[in-house]
Amino acid sequence: MTRRAIGAIPYLYPVPIVWVGALVDGVANFATVGDCAVMGIQPPLLAASLAATHHTTRGILDHGTFSVSLPTTADLELVDAYGQVSGRDIDKSSRVRHFTGELGTAPMAACCPVAIECRVVHCASIEHRRIFIGEVVETYVEEQFLDAETGRPRSLTELDPILYALDNHYYRVGSSIGVGYREGKPLARELTAGDEA
Amino acid sequence: MTRRAIGAIPYLYPVPIVWVGALVDGVANFATVGDCAVMGIQPPLLAASLAATHHTTRGILDHGTFSVSLPTTADLELVDAYGQVSGRDIDKSSRVRHFTGELGTAPMAACCPVAIECRVVHCASIEHRRIFIGEVVETYVEEQFLDAETGRPRSLTELDPILYALDNHYYRVGSSIGVGYREGKPLARELTAGDEA
Repeated sequence: MTRRAIGAIPYLYPVPIVWVGALVDGVANFATVGDCAVMGIQPPLLAASLAATHHTTRGILDHGTFSVSLPTTADLELVDAYGQVSGRDIDKSSRVRHFTGELGTAPMAACCPVAIECRVVHCASIEHRRIFIGEVVETYVEEQFLDAETGRPRSLTELDPILYALDNHYYRVGSSIGVGYREGKPLARELTAGDEA
Repeated sequence: MTRRAIGAIPYLYPVPIVWVGALVDGVANFATVGDCAVMGIQPPLLAASLAATHHTTRGILDHGTFSVSLPTTADLELVDAYGQVSGRDIDKSSRVRHFTGELGTAPMAACCPVAIECRVVHCASIEHRRIFIGEVVETYVEEQFLDAETGRPRSLTELDPILYALDNHYYRVGSSIGVGYREGKPLARELTAGDEA
């Protein structure tokens, strides 16, 4: 196998596409971003990276809060459009019905099956990027997607998220290929035993 | 539509599963994590979150470098196992052939189509989490996955990454559903024009 260096590219793939929401001058704004991630379960942390000049960034800095809403593939057109236009130029709240939660200043998109409100606990400035780390305050799920027994979303397929990769294509989620902490359990045991032997 | 609050859960889905690599006491170590993300293209930034007590964390703090390697679904068993066992207890380098790049202290997994080496430019400590933000130094791709014309990976399907969601299932990537900055371009124009009217 031959390997080639292709330059300093953050080629991590694919990433979930979300709307980062903030209240900017009293107006709910939604930026389409792929630079968003889970940074831990306990404490529950999300990270979102925006440009310092992004309209949304000002709202986050003003209130110390933001939201992450997860659109479905049904909203792909609007999601792609909201990655191309700024809340400085249009009122994005007019096309996205929204609601607020405990924080009041982190508007979430009502058309999304799942939306998460966060309080900023850390902000890193790296050149023109502002990387916000938020502690999750509350997570909201449309009732129709919840499993009655577990109280959690029933199926990732139903949530139907939008993925994106640096080949500049959007993707659906594919089929399940296994269960966490089960697929490698026998191997994990074997490896540990082997090392103790 | 009714919405239910399900608690403070970072329910962002799905996430790409990667190996965060570091050199710990001279041994290449690979931790399976889902808490890893793109934080910007220019400058090229990745974030990875680990527990302070993770074996890998020590290697990253010692050298100020880490790597992100992207396993394929073919390595699911090993990937799942490496999320369950610590490099403190086994020598993970024995099952993962690896190479180093410019930095020398960020070992990358040779079985992965893509691997990225990073220099830490910021570290946030939030409770027991250590969130490392790394500037990408170089990105390595297996030649067989590269498009001769573009010099970039040809197809996300070929790269065949592993996704994970908080329903504790692993997933494949599904089909392409559109092109970035194209699907919503007419709508973006319409929205901007409407606002100017």
